[in-house]
Amino acid sequence: MKVLVIGAAGMVGRKLTAALLAAGQVGGQPIESLMLADIVAPETPAASLPIDTIATDLSEPGSAASLLQARPDLIFHLAAIVSGEAEADFEKGYRINLDGTRHLFEAIRLSAQLYRPRVVFTSSIAVFGEPLPAVIGDSQDHTPLTSYGTQKAICELLLADYSRRGFLDGVGIRLPTIAVRPGKPNKAASGFFSGIIREPLAGMEAILPVDDSVRHWFASPRAAVGFLLHAAQMDTAPLGQRRNLTMPGLSVTVAEQIAALRRVAGPAATQLIRRQPDEVIAKIVAGWPQAFDAQRASALGFRAETSFDEIIRIHIEDELPPVQP
Amino acid sequence: MKVLVIGAAGMVGRKLTAALLAAGQVGGQPIESLMLADIVAPETPAASLPIDTIATDLSEPGSAASLLQARPDLIFHLAAIVSGEAEADFEKGYRINLDGTRHLFEAIRLSAQLYRPRVVFTSSIAVFGEPLPAVIGDSQDHTPLTSYGTQKAICELLLADYSRRGFLDGVGIRLPTIAVRPGKPNKAASGFFSGIIREPLAGMEAILPVDDSVRHWFASPRAAVGFLLHAAQMDTAPLGQRRNLTMPGLSVTVAEQIAALRRVAGPAATQLIRRQPDEVIAKIVAGWPQAFDAQRASALGFRAETSFDEIIRIHIEDELPPVQP
Repeated sequence: MKVLVIGAAGMVGRKLTAALLAAGQVGGQPIESLMLADIVAPETPAASLPIDTIATDLSEPGSAASLLQARPDLIFHLAAIVSGEAEADFEKGYRINLDGTRHLFEAIRLSAQLYRPRVVFTSSIAVFGEPLPAVIGDSQDHTPLTSYGTQKAICELLLADYSRRGFLDGVGIRLPTIAVRPGKPNKAASGFFSGIIREPLAGMEAILPVDDSVRHWFASPRAAVGFLLHAAQMDTAPLGQRRNLTMPGLSVTVAEQIAALRRVAGPAATQLIRRQPDEVIAKIVAGWPQAFDAQRASALGFRAETSFDEIIRIHIEDELPPVQP
Repeated sequence: MKVLVIGAAGMVGRKLTAALLAAGQVGGQPIESLMLADIVAPETPAASLPIDTIATDLSEPGSAASLLQARPDLIFHLAAIVSGEAEADFEKGYRINLDGTRHLFEAIRLSAQLYRPRVVFTSSIAVFGEPLPAVIGDSQDHTPLTSYGTQKAICELLLADYSRRGFLDGVGIRLPTIAVRPGKPNKAASGFFSGIIREPLAGMEAILPVDDSVRHWFASPRAAVGFLLHAAQMDTAPLGQRRNLTMPGLSVTVAEQIAALRRVAGPAATQLIRRQPDEVIAKIVAGWPQAFDAQRASALGFRAETSFDEIIRIHIEDELPPVQP
């Protein structure tokens, strides 16, 4: 099968690419070729199969059609500008996150009568906004409090309608907050959830801007890749017309994160966490979902971590240099 | 204040126009001028204030901007192609129902820094699709089973985001099925709900294609106009970021409709209802919502009928020729 990854240069896109190449197949079908697309050209990984990389902007006319020329059987659409940027630049957010996705779906619809690729779309728990129940079920309505969340919610509706009409075979997955994110600290309001684990494990100080009682919803980067691969090969018949799923995850408080860090890495690590309350961040985070009951996705075979200790160990295994024997 | 009605040539648009002219004011502010827009030029009603009528297609470039030249303080956006047409013509549905609405919101956003009109948008219970609970609450997610319902759900999300960003002051109202619709029978799958009342009251036979046990959700045309006027003048602060509301209505079965007709018009009327089961219509109707618990809208002062007898009497008062004394 031919596979297209849009948004391949991002953190999840790179891990997904590595996982696809390591497996060499999806759902038992060998991968013949891989096209990696992003707004900047993704790096070309070493591989034994043909890989194309392309720098393209889905919101530009013709971009989507050119990506579809090889008629990929499986399309991962991960490309988006993030929440903060979509809020700061209203027009860019709608252009990239909404129009880009719609161009892709339209290009698929218009490309050929019998072409009906599997499309795996990454949505977000940002489609939900307060007031919310403590545990959010599978039939909670979407009341996003950001333009990013609005754009993701709209794309979910489009994915479902284009699937219902038979133009594509879509699965939308609402990712939890990904932790531990590798790399450098960033300015995202959610950054500290990863930072308070990642920096201490690297012997560096981390800032904690919120109270220890703050609760949030997590999965590891490895789990996120697992969700994508499962969505790519699952039987979509049991989805019916409900093509979008809240992914399973783990609901923990900051205190529980820190306790897990202490268990995994010892008290010296947790002493590197410096409490520096930030009312702006605390207020943003207070409006976020705290926990989900992801019954449908769990019943359909999606799996996430069940302890934060496991999430930390995955970060150590996948991101830190191997310990010398 | 200046008022713009988009979709003024339709049944609800014409009744809304008449109600606006009869009241002469909205929320205590006199109406200075009225602009009536639709895809065909609406009739110009007799009135003592300036009325402009315009035939325009919101999905065409420049259409929305030209409607906004007079900077209307209050905009009713009722224009849409109906469910059956949006299903039959995929591109036209998205062009009119989604792009047309987005053009309107964009034109408002781009028109002037301090211009922030009240926008009353008519959505639909078609944003909901089975499987659904017997009584649908205010936080049920949107899982439309038609392209029309998808387009309405997307426009609701846009209305909320444009309101949150301060570009407009939006209220979206999800109308129940309107009964008794005046006029001739049409081919809408829901047509019989009105037909089994309207035709017998006019001494004509009506076809009933579904079982008497079918339950659905109704309000009169008069109630629909009342919802629109209330949405136009309500305080929007209590809405918070949740700008879209399921309107109150009345949940009755076909058997209850017929019993109400018997009470209001006598057994001769009900004898004009001919049962002619239609499996296609029965299957479509089986996926529709049956009842809502519209707590938020009710608490905010929206009111619908509380008996189907009342709905029938309103049809007789508003549509039938006066009985000679």
